[in-house]
Order: sequence, then structure tokens, then C-alpha cells
Amino acid sequence: MIYATRRETFSASHRLHQDNLTEEENSNLYGKCNNKFGHGHNYILEVVVAGEIDPATGYLIDLKKLKSIIRENVIDKLDHHHLNFDVEFMQGIIPTTENLAVEIWKQLVDKIPHGKLYSVKIFETENNYIEYKG
Amino acid sequence: MIYATRRETFSASHRLHQDNLTEEENSNLYGKCNNKFGHGHNYILEVVVAGEIDPATGYLIDLKKLKSIIRENVIDKLDHHHLNFDVEFMQGIIPTTENLAVEIWKQLVDKIPHGKLYSVKIFETENNYIEYKG
Amino acid sequence: MIYATRRETFSASHRLHQDNLTEEENSNLYGKCNNKFGHGHNYILEVVVAGEIDPATGYLIDLKKLKSIIRENVIDKLDHHHLNFDVEFMQGIIPTTENLAVEIWKQLVDKIPHGKLYSVKIFETENNYIEYKG
Amino acid sequence: MIYATRRETFSASHRLHQDNLTEEENSNLYGKCNNKFGHGHNYILEVVVAGEIDPATGYLIDLKKLKSIIRENVIDKLDHHHLNFDVEFMQGIIPTTENLAVEIWKQLVDKIPHGKLYSVKIFETENNYIEYKG
Amino acid sequence: MIYATRRETFSASHRLHQDNLTEEENSNLYGKCNNKFGHGHNYILEVVVAGEIDPATGYLIDLKKLKSIIRENVIDKLDHHHLNFDVEFMQGIIPTTENLAVEIWKQLVDKIPHGKLYSVKIFETENNYIEYKG
Amino acid sequence: MIYATRRETFSASHRLHQDNLTEEENSNLYGKCNNKFGHGHNYILEVVVAGEIDPATGYLIDLKKLKSIIRENVIDKLDHHHLNFDVEFMQGIIPTTENLAVEIWKQLVDKIPHGKLYSVKIFETENNYIEYKG
Repeated sequence: MIYATRRETFSASHRLHQDNLTEEENSNLYGKCNNKFGHGHNYILEVVVAGEIDPATGYLIDLKKLKSIIRENVIDKLDHHHLNFDVEFMQGIIPTTENLAVEIWKQLVDKIPHGKLYSVKIFETENNYIEYKG
Repeated sequence: MIYATRRETFSASHRLHQDNLTEEENSNLYGKCNNKFGHGHNYILEVVVAGEIDPATGYLIDLKKLKSIIRENVIDKLDHHHLNFDVEFMQGIIPTTENLAVEIWKQLVDKIPHGKLYSVKIFETENNYIEYKG
Repeated sequence: MIYATRRETFSASHRLHQDNLTEEENSNLYGKCNNKFGHGHNYILEVVVAGEIDPATGYLIDLKKLKSIIRENVIDKLDHHHLNFDVEFMQGIIPTTENLAVEIWKQLVDKIPHGKLYSVKIFETENNYIEYKG
Repeated sequence: MIYATRRETFSASHRLHQDNLTEEENSNLYGKCNNKFGHGHNYILEVVVAGEIDPATGYLIDLKKLKSIIRENVIDKLDHHHLNFDVEFMQGIIPTTENLAVEIWKQLVDKIPHGKLYSVKIFETENNYIEYKG
Repeated sequence: MIYATRRETFSASHRLHQDNLTEEENSNLYGKCNNKFGHGHNYILEVVVAGEIDPATGYLIDLKKLKSIIRENVIDKLDHHHLNFDVEFMQGIIPTTENLAVEIWKQLVDKIPHGKLYSVKIFETENNYIEYKG
Repeated sequence: MIYATRRETFSASHRLHQDNLTEEENSNLYGKCNNKFGHGHNYILEVVVAGEIDPATGYLIDLKKLKSIIRENVIDKLDHHHLNFDVEFMQGIIPTTENLAVEIWKQLVDKIPHGKLYSVKIFETENNYIEYKG
């Protein structure tokens, strides 16, 4: 079993807030991540594909192709956008890094041409990151 | 001459947009940084103080004190905020990294207890950064 | 299954040495890590919690809470201390990174409020690191 | 179960090219990695050994010894060499990072004195890496 | 005075060798960098422009434009190429990092639309880098 | 003018403490850096040499030689040692990073074979660093 990882970055903003909670409940739950005008991050995304090496090419998957797939399906929709307001696949979803990892998984899982999607990892800051394995 | 640097980070959002320009002019000028709902970054701030070593302590400046000064005057006002809407010292200023560096300089220049403020450096992304030397 | 990681750092000193061995045996076993006056590191600690996303919050675990738990139970006891002499939970234990990881695991395993402790990873230097999974 | 990792680096050049394919097939398959004169990378290698802590030493494996084993068997043969032309264990093998990881595994798997080889990870660039687990 | 930096990367191979020296002289001078088949690096390039902030935009220079200028004039010519054989602006020049920095400076110095080129910095490895200021 | 930098690392311990001060004065001055048993760091050292490129070699200075000079004169004396107790050139000197930078400068300034020593930079942690320019 071999694992190929592609790292991409995107800059986005978000606000952790639930309309069905009171101001105080939101503040208790999300602290400064609930600040009224939102904030943002340079997210780092690592996508891992697992499988066998194709002896005809020496590749598990051409990482240039994986890069294009990630950019088209994920990065172009997230980069320089606001997770609460103008990212279609995040509509109605609390934009925590956990939920973002799950939704990015859903965008990619059917589009991997060789091997299978193994993991989606997102660094929200240099100290906090989330990994989802489906 | 000796130089002491303290590194801090903050997460903020912004939008590059001027009300006195048309939509098209804003878009031409700022590209995806002009996207309607804004975006954000994990900014990295490096503050450099220059001076002489105090022989009584072996310090140019106690970096624990410099950390407190930067957090009180800069980080607490920027972290998890929106540069366009809820950062007092950025009101009325186009929130480019260049302008942000100049305004951070102004917040700090009179508050350095030993040595003099030498440089304010801000990494907006891992590929783009600005340094201001007053 | 989702995994949430919190990264913390601490600076500590240690000496690899066993009183029941001769000087030569200690030197053969630990090399320069046995130097008489000890040495130190900027350790990087990564704590991984595994579990399910709570749909009420979008979190596996609030990483601000995990940060407080790690700081109170681990970092405050290690940072700027000497692993051989003034860290209670390391008393009588050879302060290798392997043993340190196991003891940090013990400090944390019962204190994780959501999900379960999955891994404790310690970087001793940029080239050497240890991971313990219980 | 505990995991000990040693990180090493080497600088090498390579060209992705198969003699049994036409120029156009090679170009379609490998893109700029097929450029005629080759190119190179600062590869980062991480070797992970898994096992139990030896209570007599506090080590899973002495990382100074693991370092020597990796340097003698792998780094000295790769560093400042050309993967296509003057690395014996890569002769006749397409020098993709996937194949390189497998061949490095073969060089090391029988030479680990304590614990077992668990993983060989290679970063080809800061955005692309491969992990092989045997 | 404000300084704006753009960071780019490229992967290239080279060999330090002078035809007018004997094998032994080349080997004494360049060591393993003289190995017959060459080797390569992931070079990191940082280009610094110095000037004043344009009050009409808040920019010293649009870093998206600086990125395009660097890619067109430098990166596209170096990335996945061999500095000795297929980079036009390095023909006849010993491909040390020092000389590479000077030649990259020459490619860029007349093409900066706002401000002036201040520095070209190249990291050959994580431990060795060169800066040229014209 | 061209600048060549070599990066090295060393692990050492220290304690900030002056015998001529009371316990309380030491504690006020140095905080947790005064803790009784000391602590340690993975210091990162960057040594910068400035000068002209030698047209006969393409080098400002052979960085392999600079590496040997730094290791022999600085790293071998500091690595895995205690700055207060077993580093000869630090005897009688408060082991702040500022003083350490000055003393490393003194060790190196007369030993640079080409160009001149320009700067000694030490990262004590990822957030604090000192630069000395003589």
C-alpha cells in the first residue's frame, strides 16, 4: 500500500455562529470565533490518495492531475471566499474545520482516477488541524 | 548594534475595496481580493527592536515584555477581527498589508521601553510579505 | 472517524543517565546526551483526539478547551523545567523522548472531555520525533 | 506501540522517461518531468520504526544509530547523485517518488536492529509527498 | 521605505564543473557538487522590491503582478531545467547559487513597474542561502 | 555586494541568573528563565558572510568550508552542553541570546577566509530571535 499526498492552500474567512442560539450561547460555544464580523485563515489542505503503484508509469496517481482535481473541485470554490456566504458546498453547514474536512471529502471522493481517497487534512492555524478519513 | 525580534500571529479577515471606485475598477485593481464577502489570513507579525545590550541584564529588551506590548497594542485588536469593520486603528484605511504594517508601526513606535522600533514585518501568506522600517 | 490535533511547545532540559550504570556504560549508551551538565530542547508536542463530530456544535472537541487541558496538565509542568529534577511525573524515569511521550499520554488520557486520546507525538529536534498511540 | 522517526535530506536529480515509449508518449505521461536534461530536488526522507520501548535504555531504537544506518545505506548513495544514472539500487527503475520509496524500504528493511521498519516517507517538494508502508 | 517580498520555488539540476580545470582541481574545488551526473535542488527564490506606498491603491506593488513578472522572466526558464544545459541566461556561467542570484537580478531589474528591485535571495537547501542586492 | 548564509543548529541548556542579585531580583528580572534547574533550547544559528564573488570559482565563500569553520569553533563547543557550566567562551557571561550572539561573533570574526563576517543570528525559539552585526 502506498500513499500519495498533495498539499494546497487557500485563504478564506468564516464565522462560527448558529442562528438558532442566543448571542450568549453562541459566545459561550465559540468564543472569539463568534466575533460579529468574522475572521479568516490561510488554510492548508492535504489530500491523501492510497493505492498501488501502476508499473506502466511508476505512479500511484499523477500528482499534477490530483492537483488539477483539487483545484477545480475545492480550492477554486474556497480561495478568497467566505465559508458562510459564498461557498455553495458549505451552505447550511457550521463552518468548523471538522465540517469543512467532511465536505471537502464529499467533493473529492468520486473524482479520484487511480487509487482511493484516504484522508483529508486541514490546518486551520499552525497549532490546530483536523484529519478526516471518511 | 543588536536586533531583537518577536514573532506573533493573528487571524483576521479583510476585503480590498474602495467605495469611490466602480465595481469594475475595484475588480481590475484588486482581483479576487475584492470578492464581495471578503476573505482572511493567518497573518504572521515580526517586530524588530534595535539597540544596545544592557550589561546589567544581558538583554536588549526583555522579549516577554515586548510580547506583552505587542499583544496589548496590536494582536488583541486584530486577532479574530475584520480589518475593514472592527479594528479601530484601521478605520478609513485600505487594508493592504503595506498599510497594515505602517499602522502597526504607529501603534508600537512610542511604546518600546528599551532600544528603538526598527522594523515591522507581516507575512500575509507563505509567499507574500511586507516589511516597513519607518 | 475524525482526528483533531493541537500543537504546543515547551523548552526543557534533560540528561540521559542511569545511576546504576558506570560512566563508561552511560557514555556508550547515550553518547553526548550523557554530557555531565545536561542540555535542552524546544520540544514540540502534538496531541491527537479521535471521535465523532458533535452535530450540535460542529466540533469533535473545542480545541481551545483541549489547549487549556494540555497546558494545565502537561506544558505548565514541563516548560522551562529540567526533566530529571523538577518535573513530578518524570521522577525516576529515564527522560528519553519515548518515555516522555508515554508519561504525557498518562497525564492526558483521562482528561479528554469528547472523543478519545489517539496519539501523543513529540519532536525533540527537527530531525527526531516519537509518536505513542497508547 | 511506539513509533520513532528520523528525518534526513538529500539532493538528487532525475528524469522521468521510458525508453520504450515515444517522445510524445513520454511527454504526455510525465510533462515537464520528462524535460530532456532532467531536473532535481531537495528530497526529505522520513524513516519510521515501530516497536516497544526497551526498559533498560528508555529507547525504542537509538536514533543516532538509525541515523547512521540510513546515511550508510541510503543517503550516501543518493545525495548529490542522479537517480537515473549513478544510483545502483535505482538501476532499471522509473525514478518516480513512489518507486524511490519502495527501493529505499528494501535497502532498510533488514537492517533495523530494534523494532521493525514501519514507513518510508519522501517529500519531493513542499507540496508533494509519498509514504510507503511495505 | 517599504519592502514587498514575493516567494517562488523551482526545481532544477546543476553540476559545478569548469572545463578548463583538471578532474582533480574540479573535485578539490567543488567536492560532491562536481559529481559527474549532476544533482538538483528545490530552490526557493525571494524577490524584494523597495519603494513607497501608492496612496491610490495602498500597494507598493501588486504582488500578483510581481508574481507574473517573476514567473515569466525567471521561474518558467528555470523550473524543471538543468542550469548547465538548457537555461539560456545561465549559458557560460558557473551555476553556483551566487552567480544564479546575480543572473536572476539581471533578468528582473528592468522589469519592476513600481518601486525598485532591492534584493534577490535564493535558498539552495534549508541550510545554505545567498542574497544579492545589486 | 553578496551575502552567503549558513544555518546550523545546536541543543543546549542554560539558566538566566546572577549571583550578585537576590532570589527575588533574579525572579523579577528573568521570570521562568530563572527556574532553579535550568531549561534548554534547540537553538538555530545563521551566520552571514558578505563580500564579492570570486570569478575563479563562482563562490563568495565555499559554504562547505564555512560549515566546517562554524562547527569547529562554535557548534562543537555548544551542542549538548550547558551554557552556564561547560562552554568555555561563555564563562562569566549571562547566557542571554544577545550575549551568546556577541560571543559567537567573537569566535568567528577572525576565521572567515573570504569576505567578512556580516551577521550572527540566533533563534532561541520559533518566536524569539536575536541578530548581531558587530
